[in-house]
Amino acid sequence: MEYMIGVDLGGTFIKAGPVSKSGNLLYEISIPSQAEISPESVVSQIGKAVATIREKYPHDRLIGVGIGSPGLVDLDGGTVKYPPNFKNWTVFRLGEETARVTGVGVEVENDANAAAVGEMKFGSARGMRDFIMVTLGTGVGGGVVIGGKVFRGQSGGAGEIGHMTVNFDGPQCKCGNRGCVEAYVGQRYLSQRVSDQLIFHHDSLINKLIDSGVEQLEPKIISQAADRGDAFALQVWKEAGMYVGVAIASTFNLFDISTAVIGGGVAKAGKPLFDSIEETVRSRVLSPLRPKTKIIPAALENSGILGAAALIAE
Amino acid sequence: MEYMIGVDLGGTFIKAGPVSKSGNLLYEISIPSQAEISPESVVSQIGKAVATIREKYPHDRLIGVGIGSPGLVDLDGGTVKYPPNFKNWTVFRLGEETARVTGVGVEVENDANAAAVGEMKFGSARGMRDFIMVTLGTGVGGGVVIGGKVFRGQSGGAGEIGHMTVNFDGPQCKCGNRGCVEAYVGQRYLSQRVSDQLIFHHDSLINKLIDSGVEQLEPKIISQAADRGDAFALQVWKEAGMYVGVAIASTFNLFDISTAVIGGGVAKAGKPLFDSIEETVRSRVLSPLRPKTKIIPAALENSGILGAAALIAE
Repeated sequence: MEYMIGVDLGGTFIKAGPVSKSGNLLYEISIPSQAEISPESVVSQIGKAVATIREKYPHDRLIGVGIGSPGLVDLDGGTVKYPPNFKNWTVFRLGEETARVTGVGVEVENDANAAAVGEMKFGSARGMRDFIMVTLGTGVGGGVVIGGKVFRGQSGGAGEIGHMTVNFDGPQCKCGNRGCVEAYVGQRYLSQRVSDQLIFHHDSLINKLIDSGVEQLEPKIISQAADRGDAFALQVWKEAGMYVGVAIASTFNLFDISTAVIGGGVAKAGKPLFDSIEETVRSRVLSPLRPKTKIIPAALENSGILGAAALIAE
Repeated sequence: MEYMIGVDLGGTFIKAGPVSKSGNLLYEISIPSQAEISPESVVSQIGKAVATIREKYPHDRLIGVGIGSPGLVDLDGGTVKYPPNFKNWTVFRLGEETARVTGVGVEVENDANAAAVGEMKFGSARGMRDFIMVTLGTGVGGGVVIGGKVFRGQSGGAGEIGHMTVNFDGPQCKCGNRGCVEAYVGQRYLSQRVSDQLIFHHDSLINKLIDSGVEQLEPKIISQAADRGDAFALQVWKEAGMYVGVAIASTFNLFDISTAVIGGGVAKAGKPLFDSIEETVRSRVLSPLRPKTKIIPAALENSGILGAAALIAE
């Protein structure tokens, strides 16, 4: 067997696993990323993860290691700049250093872009040449695929859909701007806003589901309430979908693209969220794009690892 | 001499003129576009304009005719779809028909994109490979240049910066969306908003400058007042610059571009507008782009004709 290793590099954990050429994740390991120490520690941890996986497959050929990383990834395919929440990390040749430690070829891509490549190779964007990918998680990630290639821009920073302004006078975002879509639907912002509003919704099921306090207020709680028909919870997803839809409509207008693939933990909200995104995009995008508009859920469960592995499959 | 003819096709008038290869507009004519009749009438009028110009230069070689057109222009370089305010015009092969009538090669491009090409060839974006062009007029036009080429998207409709949402709950735009940047700073929207607000600003100089009624309230009146230090007029340009800046910052984030060239009649407001655009973009764009941000006024006086002629120079 020939296989790739996909590495999903996060601020707390490295998730990694062997992936077959057809996109099957064979198993998954998770080890601390040691991002709080230094980039060298992170490389050493990635090296350990790769070695652990290779030991299990002594007779198979590892084609390469793909890494999905936070931060700006340079066009040279390996330099990662200023990943948020990584200590002592300014500009570091992550690809080169990982190749040295592991002895195999390494490809690095921004995690949101890697997720887009993963969906294109193995997921719900198979066969698509032009689409945007939006990842709804702690942050709101974005990737733009044009003609089957990630659109990276001059320095690899393109596709930042999460930091499009949907209201110039909106809430403060940690990027410095106001009213970014991330400042509305990034997981913590969303949970905070819902918890602030809960006092006006005494009868909402959400109150019962978080018996031990609002710090429990994760999107899945809101979804549990919405699944049972809770009006406030449904309204939360409707609004969230509107914010996301506004950003997608502007992105469609700019790129002349009409398909969006939506993934990430918050996207598990499912139908109430997706219906609202679709309705918003259709009513706001320029008329030539309206009939072509498609909003599709991401298909990959482990898009972080599979997207990273897909960088090698390219 | 070898020369091009640039044709600026508008809903009321066709402006056209001979342009030297170095970008000098030798003279300019203006004839009715007959857009209220049919696409065939428009072609016939373009033919007349071209013939009139050629008669003046019997010993010189016409290289080709460039047309900047409203509406969606197809990648085949000649089909114009649904130009707003043109009667009986759905999908029409403007390039092919004009070539037949004039007997020379014809290039057609969307007018906002043509303006971007004009600035790149002859104007303030000379030598630039990556920039966006924003045209502030009746509408807000947009063009994105990547690697020295207009980014057109799948069907030629890309770059619609004017219809980016800057406030999801903002004023109704004629495109069907709410809160587009055009719905704030498109000339008529802007004039209307200022005239609505004038009753709260009795002491504004604008009141004196429009002695015969608010229908006179063109952007140049606001500028005249601003030039004399009128606080309300200055505030109008500051706000307009904020709206434009918000859209530009989102566009920069998406394309990983850091230069914007701003043209069009409303851009004649000058410093108070440009200062506000620049301040807004710098405070809102993602931090890696902040130090590189450049907001530049367009240089071409007749960008409609020169941009169209530049399509031939390409």
